[in-house]
Amino acid sequence: MKVSRRATFNAAHRLFRSDWTDEQNKDVFGKCSNPNYHGHNYVLEVWLDGPINPETGYVIDLKTVKDTIQSEISERFDHRNLNLDCPEFKHLNPTAENIAVVAWGLLRAKLPEHLELSIKLWETENNCVEYAGK
Amino acid sequence: MKVSRRATFNAAHRLFRSDWTDEQNKDVFGKCSNPNYHGHNYVLEVWLDGPINPETGYVIDLKTVKDTIQSEISERFDHRNLNLDCPEFKHLNPTAENIAVVAWGLLRAKLPEHLELSIKLWETENNCVEYAGK
Amino acid sequence: MKVSRRATFNAAHRLFRSDWTDEQNKDVFGKCSNPNYHGHNYVLEVWLDGPINPETGYVIDLKTVKDTIQSEISERFDHRNLNLDCPEFKHLNPTAENIAVVAWGLLRAKLPEHLELSIKLWETENNCVEYAGK
Amino acid sequence: MKVSRRATFNAAHRLFRSDWTDEQNKDVFGKCSNPNYHGHNYVLEVWLDGPINPETGYVIDLKTVKDTIQSEISERFDHRNLNLDCPEFKHLNPTAENIAVVAWGLLRAKLPEHLELSIKLWETENNCVEYAGK
Amino acid sequence: MKVSRRATFNAAHRLFRSDWTDEQNKDVFGKCSNPNYHGHNYVLEVWLDGPINPETGYVIDLKTVKDTIQSEISERFDHRNLNLDCPEFKHLNPTAENIAVVAWGLLRAKLPEHLELSIKLWETENNCVEYAGK
Amino acid sequence: MKVSRRATFNAAHRLFRSDWTDEQNKDVFGKCSNPNYHGHNYVLEVWLDGPINPETGYVIDLKTVKDTIQSEISERFDHRNLNLDCPEFKHLNPTAENIAVVAWGLLRAKLPEHLELSIKLWETENNCVEYAGK
Repeated sequence: MKVSRRATFNAAHRLFRSDWTDEQNKDVFGKCSNPNYHGHNYVLEVWLDGPINPETGYVIDLKTVKDTIQSEISERFDHRNLNLDCPEFKHLNPTAENIAVVAWGLLRAKLPEHLELSIKLWETENNCVEYAGK
Repeated sequence: MKVSRRATFNAAHRLFRSDWTDEQNKDVFGKCSNPNYHGHNYVLEVWLDGPINPETGYVIDLKTVKDTIQSEISERFDHRNLNLDCPEFKHLNPTAENIAVVAWGLLRAKLPEHLELSIKLWETENNCVEYAGK
Repeated sequence: MKVSRRATFNAAHRLFRSDWTDEQNKDVFGKCSNPNYHGHNYVLEVWLDGPINPETGYVIDLKTVKDTIQSEISERFDHRNLNLDCPEFKHLNPTAENIAVVAWGLLRAKLPEHLELSIKLWETENNCVEYAGK
Repeated sequence: MKVSRRATFNAAHRLFRSDWTDEQNKDVFGKCSNPNYHGHNYVLEVWLDGPINPETGYVIDLKTVKDTIQSEISERFDHRNLNLDCPEFKHLNPTAENIAVVAWGLLRAKLPEHLELSIKLWETENNCVEYAGK
Repeated sequence: MKVSRRATFNAAHRLFRSDWTDEQNKDVFGKCSNPNYHGHNYVLEVWLDGPINPETGYVIDLKTVKDTIQSEISERFDHRNLNLDCPEFKHLNPTAENIAVVAWGLLRAKLPEHLELSIKLWETENNCVEYAGK
Repeated sequence: MKVSRRATFNAAHRLFRSDWTDEQNKDVFGKCSNPNYHGHNYVLEVWLDGPINPETGYVIDLKTVKDTIQSEISERFDHRNLNLDCPEFKHLNPTAENIAVVAWGLLRAKLPEHLELSIKLWETENNCVEYAGK
């Protein structure tokens, strides 16, 4: 049985490698590399896979998942500039893929170990990534 | 090839174990255990996985799936109180997970055996469960 | 300039007049009158119309609207049985129309008088009502 | 007859008045005033009201509206920082309300005069503004 | 108080005037004039404005509106070719605007006269028209 | 890591086998076999599964996927009649399943070989298919 909780956060970012020239960044990342940043309403779906607890009928109380998303993801990334405000992306390009890897790691550390974790992250209504830790 | 059909049903429920005290129920299930019930617009997505029938180009006529959802799920649960009106939940806490297990079993009994069945059930726009029978 | 804030609440209800016989209730309200209740994920959109405050660039800080919806609507109706738990509907049939009239009145009393108020309330993804106080 | 065209653009911004202290900005705009910006997937709906052209059956060819949104709005604001990259907001706080006023003016100048123009702008899935030029 | 009911229908059409040359049609309507038709999942929202009936708490039973949409709109247009199968569009170009005028007229004839009628019709997720009978 | 890009196209079709009688077609495909066609706003989600390129932080630049969908799918099928205009369906019934098989093949030929490809295709908001090439 898999269960999921959805949440959103709003952040600025630019796609950028500090070890590349501006021209290289622009060639590869196009307008996503605009030096003054742009932003997104990110939508995050956190999925946990495991047995139903026969006592409660829950795989996990989704309020726990909601609170973990709040403390681990929203408080870190919501209304922030991912490149400037978040040490996670100081040396890591904040593509949707890399944000997903970071978010997965933050959530994995706090959610029960017996449950398999995967996440989906929408950057726009047309672009989405999915990550399960490997 | 997987194919799916979406449907909705509206039902009341409370999360509750009759063998627990009211205090225990409230401790574990919070406001979801309100004695007078609350309710949801459940959204159900039924997925079937199998080969395309080369004659029709269908895995299955989705009208069959629509009708099976209607007779097995909607007629049982729509505009009902899951705890009081539905014998399936007389001794089973109607969490989204348990509703999914019950719905999967009801659908499994009626849909073609050669097709693998999985379902997704949204309780709210933020909470969802997925079940494939094991 | 109009501004709006969206919120959701989950409640049980039945359509029912206590001064009618069960048969009359069933004749008029059909399955919506099921004696053991059913429920919905209500979606509420609160609209306020007025001038932009030139100092802030806001018609109103939507956080105020969010908090007012929380205190006036969600705390009253979320995870409740509208017929049994909410005195507003003790003698008022909780149709979407009547819920909208009640919600409009509750919000009108708390939101700034110089802003015109209207609300939209979805009972399901297909059924919606809109009310502006007259 | 009203017709509408929807489009999206992704931008960074912060709510901020340069003539206020950082403390004042933070008091009034909270986390929306984060100095390093945050961002949104803005959704814009452009509505035009007027008679159907009996020759074409169109109020206006929506391709014209699509192209006007592209040239006037998306090329200006998409993948930009509204505060830093857009002269329109050099001295104007980029609240959703002010963005709507600016966008309405840009569109009004290019769309046919005999059609009344109004726009809706979503900043998030929960926050929306609507503006008709007065 | 306004109330609405949403429904969908799937139809083929082409934008085309039989009194124009193929070239004229192509010039004005572009790919929408492809001689072999294309199609859409139309979404219709029917709005009625009037007083709440104090006896029922309804402006109108939305089941009536649902049934009227079914008999007047879906049975006429669903899974049809608007140009070839529907006499309404034999001499009328089936733009979204014209479909809205026709649908409004069909619904107006069947829905209670004391309620003002307006409709919204989405041709795609980005294109929408709204009509209120004048 | 999986990444996806969403796109839409609008097409007419009918479910039909030329080697069956009209009666057989109508028996099996019902109103979907209407001889004058009907149509849909198809929604396509293209998923690619593979490692993150450590240099860019991308699995693949989604602009490449967007452009490939445009050239391989939209230019072929958008605003077309699948049965009449598209040789792919001259002898293949254009069910959602068969359209998915065809679209998968067209995309597979153009997208990087080291990435696993799967697609989801919605024919309506309630009907969806998913295909991964086997």
